[in-house]
Amino acid sequence: MAENIERLKELDSEIQRLSNIAALLGWDQETYMPEGAVEERSEQKALLEGMIHERITSPEMAKIFSKLGLSESKAAVSGLSVTGTDQAFLREAYRRYRLQSKLPTKLVRRIAKETSLALAKWAEAREKADFTIFSGNLETILTLVREKADALGYEEHIYDPLLDEFEPWMKTKELQEVFQNVQKSLTALLSRITASGTRVESGFLKREYPVDKQRQLSLGVLKSMGYDFKYGRLDLSTHPFTITLGSTDVRLTTRYDRSFFPKGLFGTIHEGGHGLYELGIAAELHGSLLADGTSMGIHESQSRLWENFLGRSRAFWRWFYPRVKELFPAVLADIDLDTFYRGINRVEPSFIRVEADEVTYNLHIILRFNLEMSLVNGDLKVKDLPEAWNQESRELLGITPPDVSLGVLQDIHWSMGDIGYFPTYALGNLYAAQFFRTLKRELPRAEAEVEEGNFSAILAWLREKIHSPGRVYTAGDLCTRVTGETLNPDYYLQYLEEKYGAIYGI
Amino acid sequence: MAENIERLKELDSEIQRLSNIAALLGWDQETYMPEGAVEERSEQKALLEGMIHERITSPEMAKIFSKLGLSESKAAVSGLSVTGTDQAFLREAYRRYRLQSKLPTKLVRRIAKETSLALAKWAEAREKADFTIFSGNLETILTLVREKADALGYEEHIYDPLLDEFEPWMKTKELQEVFQNVQKSLTALLSRITASGTRVESGFLKREYPVDKQRQLSLGVLKSMGYDFKYGRLDLSTHPFTITLGSTDVRLTTRYDRSFFPKGLFGTIHEGGHGLYELGIAAELHGSLLADGTSMGIHESQSRLWENFLGRSRAFWRWFYPRVKELFPAVLADIDLDTFYRGINRVEPSFIRVEADEVTYNLHIILRFNLEMSLVNGDLKVKDLPEAWNQESRELLGITPPDVSLGVLQDIHWSMGDIGYFPTYALGNLYAAQFFRTLKRELPRAEAEVEEGNFSAILAWLREKIHSPGRVYTAGDLCTRVTGETLNPDYYLQYLEEKYGAIYGI
Repeated sequence: MAENIERLKELDSEIQRLSNIAALLGWDQETYMPEGAVEERSEQKALLEGMIHERITSPEMAKIFSKLGLSESKAAVSGLSVTGTDQAFLREAYRRYRLQSKLPTKLVRRIAKETSLALAKWAEAREKADFTIFSGNLETILTLVREKADALGYEEHIYDPLLDEFEPWMKTKELQEVFQNVQKSLTALLSRITASGTRVESGFLKREYPVDKQRQLSLGVLKSMGYDFKYGRLDLSTHPFTITLGSTDVRLTTRYDRSFFPKGLFGTIHEGGHGLYELGIAAELHGSLLADGTSMGIHESQSRLWENFLGRSRAFWRWFYPRVKELFPAVLADIDLDTFYRGINRVEPSFIRVEADEVTYNLHIILRFNLEMSLVNGDLKVKDLPEAWNQESRELLGITPPDVSLGVLQDIHWSMGDIGYFPTYALGNLYAAQFFRTLKRELPRAEAEVEEGNFSAILAWLREKIHSPGRVYTAGDLCTRVTGETLNPDYYLQYLEEKYGAIYGI
Repeated sequence: MAENIERLKELDSEIQRLSNIAALLGWDQETYMPEGAVEERSEQKALLEGMIHERITSPEMAKIFSKLGLSESKAAVSGLSVTGTDQAFLREAYRRYRLQSKLPTKLVRRIAKETSLALAKWAEAREKADFTIFSGNLETILTLVREKADALGYEEHIYDPLLDEFEPWMKTKELQEVFQNVQKSLTALLSRITASGTRVESGFLKREYPVDKQRQLSLGVLKSMGYDFKYGRLDLSTHPFTITLGSTDVRLTTRYDRSFFPKGLFGTIHEGGHGLYELGIAAELHGSLLADGTSMGIHESQSRLWENFLGRSRAFWRWFYPRVKELFPAVLADIDLDTFYRGINRVEPSFIRVEADEVTYNLHIILRFNLEMSLVNGDLKVKDLPEAWNQESRELLGITPPDVSLGVLQDIHWSMGDIGYFPTYALGNLYAAQFFRTLKRELPRAEAEVEEGNFSAILAWLREKIHSPGRVYTAGDLCTRVTGETLNPDYYLQYLEEKYGAIYGI
């Protein structure tokens, strides 16, 4: 038993290193790679992904799992004489083996190659606001994604294995129920806000904020949050992301808009939240597959907690606003703290998801979830997608994007083949609210410390409860361990009611 | 036959891609990697290098070569029924297999890991001007390098297999003879220059040249040379280098000194010369091991040709100096073209190799060659190296470095395990002179075109004669094909006599 697990750990450690190397190829492509190298890079990525896949599904792996008594019909590790971290390691290793061994190497390599090509086409299509540049690539990707879902297998819904890739163990049906409730409550809250007649000023956010000073602010906030630049960087990319190139190398990207202040700063804080999660994983898990976020929903709970629950709170700005005013004294001369706080929390249906307020954000996700479901089950054709997007946008948000760059082409995810990913953003908000409520109960001084720009106790709490275990607990288990109950969307809705009730006087 | 060669090409193509990926790991480490990631990165590099080594020496490779009738005792491909590019491919593939299969995977992995660690220590030691920080690492590296030489085997000199790695087919003895002649002529020329009493002003090169403008100049020169930024970049690093991340991705680095103008510009032109070689390789060789410089000496001939034979020529500055003056009008107000030209060509023994003038440069190389020989054959201990360096410096250049950062720690190469590399720099100068003489004969308008900032005919000539064949011809064959004779150091000495005779009136 012990011997088999040791050998598994050795094999896993090489797989982790290769994945970290693959991550560098991706980071470089998004930041510094010369444009002419895109085809060759896609070949390199495909080769590496193929090699990783071969290792995960190697005959030696198969033999070890079979010796350990694990099989498709007996996949649970709970009955085995192994406990603690080793049990979690075995659970995750076998899960990965089982899923990946259902995928032919050829398919994995094709997906890696096609998505790398699609990424460049998507960027071009978005820039030119021309969906047809990208639609052929998206069709190819959807065909491959359906092949993948079929290979992985499912009982209820073709979307199940796709969702499971990002939010392990969660089913489409469960998600649909959560989203139905959330959608109902959010549309109701949005109507009340709109009907309140309260005017929230936010035009000052679109004044001129020089990019070099925005960058200075971003770096300063990350440092205050506890992000350690000895083990990371902040670069520019079209779509901000956090990427793990190793346990000692977790990099962030952001982008700045000279004429829209929130974009750069909140994008940075968001990625900072992801980065702190990855850098907070316990050292004894380093180099293994347990050194990872336990689900994308939990990962997103960390970015949203920093971006919104802390970053858009009044306490945060009591500390931070004087600093911002120092950097932009003329631009913000006529704006007081209260006006600023209300401005960055203004609720208004808008086109771009990553810039959406906390009330409408999850509606953006539900829109994408609905379209993904229709695309993968074949109800919706790629050629009809832009119009379907606009239709959903009118129904959920009451607005129609003027062009595809503000609509269907705004997100990078589909070009990367990441279908099933979007829902985890909404789950992140829900988990964040539930964690934040517990945090505030267990750290009564949290708000006062935020007002002093002191995040050390908060970070220590997050590390102990959420970051350090990495993937040892499943998302559901972690949620129960930390908060005492399973996922409960009510906390998010309560949080919104309270915060936006105060701002809009409803 | 054809089938075996096809399969070899498939295997080689994966090896090339993995080498390109390994190059990205190296590039990132030297440019953007956070410092805390150094140990993990060294593990990643070691893993990848080990995998490459395993593929080069795989049982399948062995089988194919044996089927083709190649063996240690019958290593020449000339007798086989294969011609042209395929013959060259087979020659290089078998050479690589034969050499690599003598190296145990364990040793290759250890070298990769230890050099990655040593690199960081070297940087720290150089910064602190403290040799002891790095000496332990250097001892480890020397032990490994000796193990490598023993494994590769040699008849005459332990240095032979080390030199052969960078300058294939060349022997230590041959090199010693060339260097003896060169040293004699150079010291004689240097004495005559010193004795001439001619004063060449160069103090103006140490005025203040803002870095952003230096960068602007560097980018402009690279574009004029024909370096295509669609397939490359220019970044900053401690030690400038050119690195091939693929046939469509060849990157350069440089560094600027605000108070020393030549450092940034000539460093950039030098790397630009390397970059043009790599980017000029014929498309039909892309992705194979023939898509590479044929030896480091030939590679260096391209960088030195651009840096010195063109970049430090009067014709070049007739075109370029007005542009430089436009960027630094106040700084260079009192300096005319002739003063500038003479200043950048001032001959004076100095500490730093990469900033040395054309007359003393090869003496710096001979110094390193002498020390490397003594280190590998055990005559010189690492602890005595700094003093030995100073001793050689006094003998060859007549000066003693004030500290180790200006002496034994100035170069990155030993920290990378690259013993046997330095001589190729001197060979580069010799080859460059021989090529340049032929170029001027075949392109009588070359000088006139340089005066107009037009490098297209020169680049086309270099591409056709030297770049496009990649590794198809060996260095010796290439030299004969292009110039009609084998390596002849006289051309370099003639070039120096003529150029510096004019400057110093001797």
